[in-house]
Amino acid sequence: MSAENNRFKKNYSGKRNQNSARSDSAKRLSNKKTANKSLKRTTKPKKKTIPSIKVAFLGGLNEIGKNITLFECEGDIILLDCGMAFPDGDMLGVDLVIPDFSYIEQNIDRVKGMVVTHGHEDHIGGIPFLLSKMNIPIYGTPLTIGLIGNKLKEHNLFNSAKLNVIKAGGSVKLGCFKAEFIRVNHSIPDSVAIALHTPAGVVVHSGDFKIDCTPFVGEMIDLHSFARLGNEGVLAFLCESTNADRPGYTATEQTVTASLDKLFNDASKHRIIIATFASNVNRVQQIIDVAFKYKRKVAFSGRSMVNYMSVAEELGYLKVPKNIIIDIDMLERYPREQVVLITTGSQGEPMSALSRMAYSDHRKVMVGDGDFIIISANPIPGNEKSVGNVIDELLKRGCKVIYEGMYDVHVSGHACQEELKILQKLVNPKYFIPVHGEQKHLRKNAELAELLGIEKKNIYIGDIGSQIEINEEYIKELPPVHAGKVFVDGLGVGDVGSIVLRDRKHLAQDGLIIIVASLDVYDGHVISGPDIVSRGFVYVRESEELLDEIRSDALRILEDCADHNIHEWGTIKNRIKDEVSRLITQKTRRSPMILPILQEV
Amino acid sequence: MSAENNRFKKNYSGKRNQNSARSDSAKRLSNKKTANKSLKRTTKPKKKTIPSIKVAFLGGLNEIGKNITLFECEGDIILLDCGMAFPDGDMLGVDLVIPDFSYIEQNIDRVKGMVVTHGHEDHIGGIPFLLSKMNIPIYGTPLTIGLIGNKLKEHNLFNSAKLNVIKAGGSVKLGCFKAEFIRVNHSIPDSVAIALHTPAGVVVHSGDFKIDCTPFVGEMIDLHSFARLGNEGVLAFLCESTNADRPGYTATEQTVTASLDKLFNDASKHRIIIATFASNVNRVQQIIDVAFKYKRKVAFSGRSMVNYMSVAEELGYLKVPKNIIIDIDMLERYPREQVVLITTGSQGEPMSALSRMAYSDHRKVMVGDGDFIIISANPIPGNEKSVGNVIDELLKRGCKVIYEGMYDVHVSGHACQEELKILQKLVNPKYFIPVHGEQKHLRKNAELAELLGIEKKNIYIGDIGSQIEINEEYIKELPPVHAGKVFVDGLGVGDVGSIVLRDRKHLAQDGLIIIVASLDVYDGHVISGPDIVSRGFVYVRESEELLDEIRSDALRILEDCADHNIHEWGTIKNRIKDEVSRLITQKTRRSPMILPILQEV
Repeated sequence: MSAENNRFKKNYSGKRNQNSARSDSAKRLSNKKTANKSLKRTTKPKKKTIPSIKVAFLGGLNEIGKNITLFECEGDIILLDCGMAFPDGDMLGVDLVIPDFSYIEQNIDRVKGMVVTHGHEDHIGGIPFLLSKMNIPIYGTPLTIGLIGNKLKEHNLFNSAKLNVIKAGGSVKLGCFKAEFIRVNHSIPDSVAIALHTPAGVVVHSGDFKIDCTPFVGEMIDLHSFARLGNEGVLAFLCESTNADRPGYTATEQTVTASLDKLFNDASKHRIIIATFASNVNRVQQIIDVAFKYKRKVAFSGRSMVNYMSVAEELGYLKVPKNIIIDIDMLERYPREQVVLITTGSQGEPMSALSRMAYSDHRKVMVGDGDFIIISANPIPGNEKSVGNVIDELLKRGCKVIYEGMYDVHVSGHACQEELKILQKLVNPKYFIPVHGEQKHLRKNAELAELLGIEKKNIYIGDIGSQIEINEEYIKELPPVHAGKVFVDGLGVGDVGSIVLRDRKHLAQDGLIIIVASLDVYDGHVISGPDIVSRGFVYVRESEELLDEIRSDALRILEDCADHNIHEWGTIKNRIKDEVSRLITQKTRRSPMILPILQEV
Repeated sequence: MSAENNRFKKNYSGKRNQNSARSDSAKRLSNKKTANKSLKRTTKPKKKTIPSIKVAFLGGLNEIGKNITLFECEGDIILLDCGMAFPDGDMLGVDLVIPDFSYIEQNIDRVKGMVVTHGHEDHIGGIPFLLSKMNIPIYGTPLTIGLIGNKLKEHNLFNSAKLNVIKAGGSVKLGCFKAEFIRVNHSIPDSVAIALHTPAGVVVHSGDFKIDCTPFVGEMIDLHSFARLGNEGVLAFLCESTNADRPGYTATEQTVTASLDKLFNDASKHRIIIATFASNVNRVQQIIDVAFKYKRKVAFSGRSMVNYMSVAEELGYLKVPKNIIIDIDMLERYPREQVVLITTGSQGEPMSALSRMAYSDHRKVMVGDGDFIIISANPIPGNEKSVGNVIDELLKRGCKVIYEGMYDVHVSGHACQEELKILQKLVNPKYFIPVHGEQKHLRKNAELAELLGIEKKNIYIGDIGSQIEINEEYIKELPPVHAGKVFVDGLGVGDVGSIVLRDRKHLAQDGLIIIVASLDVYDGHVISGPDIVSRGFVYVRESEELLDEIRSDALRILEDCADHNIHEWGTIKNRIKDEVSRLITQKTRRSPMILPILQEV
């Protein structure tokens, strides 16, 4: 608690600076305060450098997911979000990807806390891994904190964690930062943007957002607060870019309700199965409401779906009519036309509930002729093929399947170009910094800002590890900080690196050949072997001739080395590798990994 | 040549049957011929069974690519197309996928030849592998045969091959079949549909097609011939389904010309680089024409691009103005604004020319600020992510990139729903059989047919290996024939099967651990080792403790087996595998492949 007290003292002094900076900042926008400002100047004549804020991008640029940003001002550091990303196709065997926390660790004594914009995996998924190293206090809205808490329980970190609830509209002081939480629309309730009030000025981070004037649950994005900030003067706006290459507006959630209603009506003789993101609490609410109208019971399938919904219901974000939810085990006891199953697997993930149903591998649900399946989500880039495969399998089993653009059964949670433009105009920043997205999204968002009148020199497109310094006078790039990807594979965090991945890729491509022999400890001649073991290379029974050739090649080399008194194992192994790989390339045009293993007897 | 003569004799008798069948077929469509028909019935009173045609689908159903269909009538067999497919993400290390030819091999003495619809890889890519086993005569239009010939040269099969040119509008007799070649529009010139006139009636196969009333090169699809066939009576229509889930029409190629013209105009200070399919001869023609207008030289990059264009130019399908083509080595000698580079890599393929440029790995072309890059193709499902990555890299290097729907720089080569409906109506078949596509495409095409009035029982959706028998009276499913996927990896065809792939997947996921020990030939005790070698599992230097534990575990098991007189290696190895894998799962939650290797000394 004494640390806390110190922090508050610091805040107080920070506050003074902040006021002075604020008026600096406001000067550009309003001349009314000029007298006030010059007064301050005279009272503080020694001050020469104006305060700055540093921003380090530890993730979320040039990638989808793994969002994490670090802000530094007057020595204080705060973090914004800490997400995970799913592995790319070439990250073989990797379960998930989290940010590299080294830079945070190096500066941990200055870290005042983390503010979190919403409860999606790409914004909170890295938190357990961070907290297992550093117990940073976390601030978020009720649902976000509830979901983080749930996650921390799974990692046995809940009891020690310092979780703090801040409602949308509220704010928290963290060192010299005051973080203001501003309600936005997104595909999960209780999402916020964050305005950071600092001695160097105000920096706004949009989080993930869209503008839905008629959301299905909750209230509309708090445009008034963005307008107020814009009026008062915003130094920098970090704005999400996910849909920056889509023109127009994202349709309101109400369109989904209308489509679902129509489909429930059409499918009155079918069992309905709907796949969506486990975290899309709003969508699930819509489905439950329509199910209620059509007198259907609702069951959930998929661990993450069950998890999300229990937290959302507990905290009052999911309104569930009495007796509507049934356990998945009870599904068979109701006629098909009286149930809805809400399931994970909208991305075609191989182990997900929907995939298991499609491939007849689900323990509890068999799908077929009487099933009406709605995929209420769009494929995330990279998942198109696996989603397509799942759809095909379901169709082959005789299910009716509603997917992609067939009906309006999904709307994005992210702002399209017109919405981005509106928020940019409201916030009206000096510097514009597109975040969250691949290069093409960042560039498109930057182009929008330029179109709206922000000078090119005041727009900054960064990369993972980029660090900038901004203040009223300039925006400049600092040397990058340590940042990157850390792979999580099973229980291992960071023990799978580029060498391990390179080996996995090599093994995946053409398999391996092991050449093992026991050598005489005295003269190096072969006592046993060489034996050839291959995996993932060729079907062994049909390739005995080739394996024999490899064996006699290896034997010849080993004996030749012994004859010539070559006993250095590195040399011998390299000769075997080189000659055998030449033989194999010539015979098969493949390059399996070749592993000579020698033992001395 | 005597075989040829026999064939013609047979054809002649086939012709008579055909006439009778034709009138049978025509009955349904026109009552005018009734008298004629009953006359025939009386002249042939002994005939009881009506002739049938069998169709076996050896590829192209429930998949994109690998198109090959087998038709059988009165003992004669002909093939239609023989394509390859690209491997799915889970076919690790596989270069390409070809059809299983066993059923053709078993019936080779009855195979009269193969007709080919057009020169795309998914229709001709399997031919060299087929011809290396069976020298089947091949019939196609000039460009198609030219491209097949080129391919066969690479496989040293050209000289022995029996290649026959049939112009669009022409026909060829093969056994009791007469194959009529009908011009269609597609993204490669000289594409045709095939109408098979048989004793059992007429079967039409659309090949790949679209309806372009104003194609950029060549003539419009020969709708009149389809109309004539429809009038005369068609037994079955096998219709491609690639775009069956897209409403509306595919835009005319002319829209691409207009867009390219505009972009060339905009990019007047840039070097222009355009990526498209190597086989899209029409697109390359458009680019060359626009380049000519804007006085730019044209260079090609990518081996397959160079191959396709040389054949197309040689045969007159690519009209190249004098002195416009330059070698890629000459590119640097011209100012950027005076050149266009046409390249492969529109699908983000890792080894393609455009990918190499994006990742600064191209030997001859460095891209950057002054480059204007147009991707004139849509990503094939599954390639979205890699195409996106290439675009991002190009953008990072400062290139301008035109991609996806940004401008009309690409139109599909396949018919959308309205075109499919038009052709279905013109052909007006008794039986409708959607082909070429995944389940969802086949179903959509079937739905269109139903919409147009074909009874559900007369629509057949098959799978790879399905075989049907059709005649005027019925369509019925026969037992499936042997069919499937054969993997090509390097020089090996078919030597990578499910076991090898399973091992590659296992290795890719968590790597492997090799446990090698030399045992005393007499008492089974350990003489040397056990040594632990791992690859793709963990970063070894940071996991020595775990590897030590594995070693001592293995040693304990080996000694225990020796102590208890267990000398059966299978038993010993299994114990090591089981116990070590349990240890590893517990410590890491991973399951690497565990390979115990024992040697006797």
